[in-house]
Amino acid sequence: MTVVVQNIQRAAPEEIEGLGKAGVATVHEAQGRTGLLSSRMRPIYAGAQIAGSAVTISAPPGDNWMIHVAIEQLRPGDVLVLAPTSPCDNGYFGDLLATSAMARGCRGLVIDAGVRDIRDLTGMGFPVWSSAVSAQGTVKETLGSVNVPIVCAGAHVEPGDVIVADDDGVCVVKRADAASVLKKANERLANEEAKRQRLAAGELGLDIYSMRERLAEKGLKYV
Amino acid sequence: MTVVVQNIQRAAPEEIEGLGKAGVATVHEAQGRTGLLSSRMRPIYAGAQIAGSAVTISAPPGDNWMIHVAIEQLRPGDVLVLAPTSPCDNGYFGDLLATSAMARGCRGLVIDAGVRDIRDLTGMGFPVWSSAVSAQGTVKETLGSVNVPIVCAGAHVEPGDVIVADDDGVCVVKRADAASVLKKANERLANEEAKRQRLAAGELGLDIYSMRERLAEKGLKYV
Amino acid sequence: MTVVVQNIQRAAPEEIEGLGKAGVATVHEAQGRTGLLSSRMRPIYAGAQIAGSAVTISAPPGDNWMIHVAIEQLRPGDVLVLAPTSPCDNGYFGDLLATSAMARGCRGLVIDAGVRDIRDLTGMGFPVWSSAVSAQGTVKETLGSVNVPIVCAGAHVEPGDVIVADDDGVCVVKRADAASVLKKANERLANEEAKRQRLAAGELGLDIYSMRERLAEKGLKYV
Amino acid sequence: MTVVVQNIQRAAPEEIEGLGKAGVATVHEAQGRTGLLSSRMRPIYAGAQIAGSAVTISAPPGDNWMIHVAIEQLRPGDVLVLAPTSPCDNGYFGDLLATSAMARGCRGLVIDAGVRDIRDLTGMGFPVWSSAVSAQGTVKETLGSVNVPIVCAGAHVEPGDVIVADDDGVCVVKRADAASVLKKANERLANEEAKRQRLAAGELGLDIYSMRERLAEKGLKYV
Amino acid sequence: MTVVVQNIQRAAPEEIEGLGKAGVATVHEAQGRTGLLSSRMRPIYAGAQIAGSAVTISAPPGDNWMIHVAIEQLRPGDVLVLAPTSPCDNGYFGDLLATSAMARGCRGLVIDAGVRDIRDLTGMGFPVWSSAVSAQGTVKETLGSVNVPIVCAGAHVEPGDVIVADDDGVCVVKRADAASVLKKANERLANEEAKRQRLAAGELGLDIYSMRERLAEKGLKYV
Amino acid sequence: MTVVVQNIQRAAPEEIEGLGKAGVATVHEAQGRTGLLSSRMRPIYAGAQIAGSAVTISAPPGDNWMIHVAIEQLRPGDVLVLAPTSPCDNGYFGDLLATSAMARGCRGLVIDAGVRDIRDLTGMGFPVWSSAVSAQGTVKETLGSVNVPIVCAGAHVEPGDVIVADDDGVCVVKRADAASVLKKANERLANEEAKRQRLAAGELGLDIYSMRERLAEKGLKYV
Repeated sequence: MTVVVQNIQRAAPEEIEGLGKAGVATVHEAQGRTGLLSSRMRPIYAGAQIAGSAVTISAPPGDNWMIHVAIEQLRPGDVLVLAPTSPCDNGYFGDLLATSAMARGCRGLVIDAGVRDIRDLTGMGFPVWSSAVSAQGTVKETLGSVNVPIVCAGAHVEPGDVIVADDDGVCVVKRADAASVLKKANERLANEEAKRQRLAAGELGLDIYSMRERLAEKGLKYV
Repeated sequence: MTVVVQNIQRAAPEEIEGLGKAGVATVHEAQGRTGLLSSRMRPIYAGAQIAGSAVTISAPPGDNWMIHVAIEQLRPGDVLVLAPTSPCDNGYFGDLLATSAMARGCRGLVIDAGVRDIRDLTGMGFPVWSSAVSAQGTVKETLGSVNVPIVCAGAHVEPGDVIVADDDGVCVVKRADAASVLKKANERLANEEAKRQRLAAGELGLDIYSMRERLAEKGLKYV
Repeated sequence: MTVVVQNIQRAAPEEIEGLGKAGVATVHEAQGRTGLLSSRMRPIYAGAQIAGSAVTISAPPGDNWMIHVAIEQLRPGDVLVLAPTSPCDNGYFGDLLATSAMARGCRGLVIDAGVRDIRDLTGMGFPVWSSAVSAQGTVKETLGSVNVPIVCAGAHVEPGDVIVADDDGVCVVKRADAASVLKKANERLANEEAKRQRLAAGELGLDIYSMRERLAEKGLKYV
Repeated sequence: MTVVVQNIQRAAPEEIEGLGKAGVATVHEAQGRTGLLSSRMRPIYAGAQIAGSAVTISAPPGDNWMIHVAIEQLRPGDVLVLAPTSPCDNGYFGDLLATSAMARGCRGLVIDAGVRDIRDLTGMGFPVWSSAVSAQGTVKETLGSVNVPIVCAGAHVEPGDVIVADDDGVCVVKRADAASVLKKANERLANEEAKRQRLAAGELGLDIYSMRERLAEKGLKYV
Repeated sequence: MTVVVQNIQRAAPEEIEGLGKAGVATVHEAQGRTGLLSSRMRPIYAGAQIAGSAVTISAPPGDNWMIHVAIEQLRPGDVLVLAPTSPCDNGYFGDLLATSAMARGCRGLVIDAGVRDIRDLTGMGFPVWSSAVSAQGTVKETLGSVNVPIVCAGAHVEPGDVIVADDDGVCVVKRADAASVLKKANERLANEEAKRQRLAAGELGLDIYSMRERLAEKGLKYV
Repeated sequence: MTVVVQNIQRAAPEEIEGLGKAGVATVHEAQGRTGLLSSRMRPIYAGAQIAGSAVTISAPPGDNWMIHVAIEQLRPGDVLVLAPTSPCDNGYFGDLLATSAMARGCRGLVIDAGVRDIRDLTGMGFPVWSSAVSAQGTVKETLGSVNVPIVCAGAHVEPGDVIVADDDGVCVVKRADAASVLKKANERLANEEAKRQRLAAGELGLDIYSMRERLAEKGLKYV
């Protein structure tokens, strides 16, 4: 029941980089509006935009022991993803753990629980997306698991899946889909750039997207 | 049931500017503590302070079709105000719609739902007050209405009413009351400035507002 | 039932300063994980870190009269701590009251209710930890008490207790415990600094804290 | 600013009775899915189903003085509807006020705040839809208004509008629309009864509503 | 830091019985509107009304070990009161613990966390007031304390204080105040009974409480 | 992207019946504390206890079209499980759909959204576990999927998994694990019955579970 899976597969680095550049909203659209974590997941500071491979943690409420275990499993470019086995807003993670994670090349933390030392974390440039901020610490008494499938903030995450996170939230891309999602995301970005220029010039979405006829069919009346 | 009202009346520009300068807390007091939207409405970035005429949108949950329709109705100085017909935290609005709205002179968006692309919106200087941030997009399947009376975050808003928004939240002033509320707001501001100087000099509110006698009457005891 | 206690005891200034430098997470750990206020208490701007002696206010919902009374009781280095007698998100406090409190040497406000004028408060550098932001003002009709024991955001606060507040939240230290808690906090800080250097060099918490054996005993399996 | 409107118009008794029999879900559909109060409004006991004319109350947080004033305005068949001017979960209403309201023929209370003495209210058969239960009482210090337009739990209510409430929640029907909404509601009820018999016999909604073709057009695939 | 206090003082049995009969709303008023727990504390079934002496438990999140310890401290007529040291909705308590507590004469449980087996608890007639229902169990790994002062759902509770609980919520009466609060509660009950008869006969609170003059002074207008 | 999977595998009927009799708390323990849905999932009436095979629905916010599609896929003994693709408290399901589902042998509905007609559903004996009650209806405009893996209220559910639901909440058992979990659940039930008798006779958990030594080792002090 309590296990650490040591060898996980990861997506190709160039796929991960590309998804990170596309950002959460575009990636989420590109994969058919799936994989978004709950909007209660908020960044501790504005402006960070990352992507990385998920090292997952299933942890008991109020117990951060498994984070120490997970850090040993980190490879450069990974992102820690923690789901408590029941709701808890304790501060599982602070500046010491961040120091250790950064030393292993970790790009950030996604945690459906609390985090603390956020002024230090901000100063270190270690981004965290969490559902709470709390100075309430945790114990090291009960085991959990590392690199098992988890449900984090309403999304199913497998170890090695690609995590994309920015100011809009957090999205998970299945490892096997990374290449195809990246392709669609890049197509969307190109298409959006063209639209942006026409909209900035004053053209209306009603005309660009040819919406007027369908609105009339549905029964919209102008008075 | 689904309609776009094209010609709405707006308050005078100088009234709108004045209310914007006074800010939400002062305007709310000046009109007898009415018109405040729920405190769940938060700005996506700190420091914006706007006022404008409401172009209202009643939209189904998870459907942003009517925003495209509403943008055509915008005049320079307007503010979009969207209330979903049932609670929804989807991201109805992002940088493409903001580009289009800005091209029409729109000053901002007030939305009792989600918004996305907030790093881009912040970079563009397009202020939004929302009840959520979410990358979850919306569809364009069901009609709503534009420029009808709505209840947004607990406040009744008519098209053409004046929307005032800043870091404290969002307040609506009925169009017909704009001049009288502005007058009272300006009186409050003048009065507050005088009080501020006395308070900064160390005088107490207890004395400035002559509260001591009434406190004693009510039974307050010092021990 | 309604009373103002005028002479309260305070901790020694050097204890208060030391606790403020240690910060909330460290102080909370140092006193055995007690005294933390609910994580719903958030700062109105990032980066403030204070400590001071509590001047407590028990106030009715929607009535800020007692803040005026409390301000007269402030000494330089104090922190106002307000708990409403029932839940209320009204904006009890704004820039005028802050002007008055600053003139008395007040270091900040902790309030399990709403605050307003937050752009002005931010500009003035007057830090507030609150459970809400709302422009909705209050009346001056009903009495409460000043410098009585209160429960604020789930923590028991006596007048003269030391309040520590930063980006992680708010913690209360009993006045009589200030010296011993400071001693333990400083020991933790020294210990953490040594750990930080080892972690930054790539050593693992698993080894530094000798966790491997206990994990194996508890049944953790690596696969 | 503070006023009691004494003579309000009400819908015809037979319209009110009919709407009450139709129930909230049907009435809400019949008027185009408008007028529903927030789902946070819950009955204090299961099984009550009422309709009546709204006597509205705008009350300060934590102050129930205006309920006494409103009770004098009640006519047999009326329903009290209270919205606090800012969020408050205090218990504004208990068995004494219910005794008084029942003596005037009141059918129930809809309150976006707290209620208490709920065992007594249940025993008396006085139904209440509220957003909270709390023994926390209120004061009688500050005025509000009676029979003015209010926004209650997100819905706009005018005095004399028809309030329909049952286990599904609370819905408001504009007084002028009562007759036409009742007509549509009765048509829906007749239609539903026919549908119910076919569905109970095992026919599928897919066939009764001829959905199969449109589902295929939209792209639904069976695998 | 972790302790069990074995000999606590309790209020007199007749005081406890009297407070239980008066009920939460009356007791809360009688002691000047203090001591009420948050309205998030709800009974698992309707109709229970109890009073008893608090045996308090401070427990870690997700760990119910100390309940076993506390049960040994129970005397007939006691009520268990549990506050987790940080927010947690786990089911700390089910039918086996209730069987054990009932065997010791325990009258009920007040817990600012989750409870489970609620169909069994209802069948056994063991009342619980909790902030959650959850089948999620807990571990037995970390110590807490029994019979120390706690803050439970926002109220300060000392061991031996009188807990009163019914459908309206939960209220705590300080042990030393039990006799005087009971006296005031009984006066209120007598007074309320007289008022109830006059109100049921159709007299208005406006007249019984002589409110008309004061309302006019405050500026209330009838139109 | 939008699909109906028609042939799903189900657990053996005797496994399903056994899990239903064991109930949520026992089943959840028996499978190592996994599979529990969020505690926001509450039954619309007390006392129902069911188990069945999941027919899953992924539906857009505010759109119940796919429920009609799913009903055709029901076999006797199934349970509908609906997760909206983004949060929504609309009433997706009422008495007509329940009539149709019951005609197909459906045992109940688990929905992380709203339900309506709850008085009728209660009268019909059709149990529902939902996160909201709301009369707000839905449209039939946008497709979703039936019998695909979903995350419902924080738990991962595959079509054909066993759903167990009672007053404590909802738990999912993977189809392949049904037999082994049932075996462990039955062992727990037998063990609990023996413990219950000893506890009812006044023995303490401290002794039955031999806790005293370990408590002392951890440092618990009796004073």
